[in-house]
Amino acid sequence: MKKIMNAPEAYTDDMLKGIYMTHEEVKYVNDDLRCYCIANKKPDKVAIITGGGTGHLPLFLGYVGHGLIDGCAVGGVFQSPSAEQIFEVTKEVEAGAGVLYLYGNYTGDIMNFDMAAELCEMEDIKTASIVGADDVNSGAPKVRRGVAGIFYMFKAAGAKADMGGNLEEVLAAAQKAKERTRTVGFAMSPCIIPEVGKPNFTLEENEMAMGMGIHGEPGIWNGPIKTSGELAEESLHTILEDMPIAKGEEAAILINGLGATSVEELYILCKDVVEYLEGQGIKVVRSNVGEYATSMEMMGASVSVCRLDEELKEYLDHPVSTPFYIQKARDGYDAV
Amino acid sequence: MKKIMNAPEAYTDDMLKGIYMTHEEVKYVNDDLRCYCIANKKPDKVAIITGGGTGHLPLFLGYVGHGLIDGCAVGGVFQSPSAEQIFEVTKEVEAGAGVLYLYGNYTGDIMNFDMAAELCEMEDIKTASIVGADDVNSGAPKVRRGVAGIFYMFKAAGAKADMGGNLEEVLAAAQKAKERTRTVGFAMSPCIIPEVGKPNFTLEENEMAMGMGIHGEPGIWNGPIKTSGELAEESLHTILEDMPIAKGEEAAILINGLGATSVEELYILCKDVVEYLEGQGIKVVRSNVGEYATSMEMMGASVSVCRLDEELKEYLDHPVSTPFYIQKARDGYDAV
Repeated sequence: MKKIMNAPEAYTDDMLKGIYMTHEEVKYVNDDLRCYCIANKKPDKVAIITGGGTGHLPLFLGYVGHGLIDGCAVGGVFQSPSAEQIFEVTKEVEAGAGVLYLYGNYTGDIMNFDMAAELCEMEDIKTASIVGADDVNSGAPKVRRGVAGIFYMFKAAGAKADMGGNLEEVLAAAQKAKERTRTVGFAMSPCIIPEVGKPNFTLEENEMAMGMGIHGEPGIWNGPIKTSGELAEESLHTILEDMPIAKGEEAAILINGLGATSVEELYILCKDVVEYLEGQGIKVVRSNVGEYATSMEMMGASVSVCRLDEELKEYLDHPVSTPFYIQKARDGYDAV
Repeated sequence: MKKIMNAPEAYTDDMLKGIYMTHEEVKYVNDDLRCYCIANKKPDKVAIITGGGTGHLPLFLGYVGHGLIDGCAVGGVFQSPSAEQIFEVTKEVEAGAGVLYLYGNYTGDIMNFDMAAELCEMEDIKTASIVGADDVNSGAPKVRRGVAGIFYMFKAAGAKADMGGNLEEVLAAAQKAKERTRTVGFAMSPCIIPEVGKPNFTLEENEMAMGMGIHGEPGIWNGPIKTSGELAEESLHTILEDMPIAKGEEAAILINGLGATSVEELYILCKDVVEYLEGQGIKVVRSNVGEYATSMEMMGASVSVCRLDEELKEYLDHPVSTPFYIQKARDGYDAV
């Protein structure tokens, strides 16, 4: 296993120690490194809390920061955090305006966030919940896994909360981003869970997997590596079948690397995605290219499309500052 | 070869097309995608120009932006750009205050930047040159390769130029960063040049290479994978032997991923680097963790240390905004 680490069982906590040493904008509470919170919370704001397994940086904790979300309960590699950890994070970051739980559509996470919500109810903390479920190839809408497209839900909800929206409005912003976002991903290689020590699936030389999940969940086909142009076409065909976008409409795209795929390749894919969409008469007006939801050292990428309207565009353009993601106001350099 | 691309020979230009489609802060000149320039140059400023092969993002072109550098001549994968391309970039971004050529210590690059400087002389454009040569394990100081530590040279020179320094002052800032920066890197896997299609070296399962260069240049030993703590210790021992730092002095660290190594691992390494340095009485006051100089899908990392003084700290804290790297002013959120 070729990883830079110490004991496999220390992987998550050693990572967290490095993050806290580096970024004073975040802290932990309850003497538990895995209760990860913004250091200076904004008063009177709806708090947004996420959580999930380690191994997907910057998902999930990397989105904790100003203009985005407020806390994250951190699980072990590909494991859910506990209800108690979610509850401890909630007590720290809630600011009297209610709490939105926003996380990926995975059984363990749903169970633990629901339990945390019950603990909140007993302490009169108002919560609402929504799960990301953007991965088209993983099934019917209700059972879909949440993958990189959850970024747009964080972005919309985070902006609305930062602008002073109430809990219902923040939930509605996340809901709108969810309804208008779809993702297709594909893997070229597996990854290794440190405490397991072996690849989580196998692919032949020159073989790839379309629709593979970020924990190695099986995809819809395995076959020879396709070109970037072919991958863009198949991904977007799948997305647009599921969520039609009319000619002349505007869209945002997120080209996400799964971990081991180079940024060079992501920009090649970006070119092909933009060319395909513009060939369909869809205007690509916002693009993000880089790592947004990874699977440690998995090779591969995902393409997310968010069908925009003026409200969502305003949310996407809201400035953000987290240790892992900075987005300036759109008026340029002087605003940095 | 598991890469997301179209024809191997289109790799560099397809990547550049994706970048220009995404980032309106940059443009190309002379009808040549590889003549990469800042879109809105700052008047009367010393221009800083770099260049080098493709395959190291964000190095080199990713550092073009406000507060950092102004132009980059882009070569093919692991190839030098031509003297003509460097000269075309120079003519576009120079603003009457002279030009600093700042690039890595590689034979082809030196030859072409020197030729470009001669072309500039004929057109009365004043130039100065400095090469990054921070990779301690690659030999005696003069022959050392430039790797991730060149970031500190860009940062110091870029800040000084942005503050209004003249060419001599900007060169001196880069020189100071150079004298005070050292890097040690190690690889766990090779990478593949698209047009070659085969790994550029081989490592056994569980074998790593200490001192390996970012193009696959041989290192100083190959052997079993070490733990993060051991890697931190060996890297820092090598660095501090070459550049002693006294107890009580301040340092900046850069933990750089070579491409396929997860960000989780980089933070584990960061923890061990900080603990080692603080054990030596050295204060780590600035940290950067992420990808700064990669080798496509190579697994591995490098550790750079910059021995700070008040002047360098001021340069490091200067705000920066490029499509690949944003650094806020240190007064926090309101400045975003």
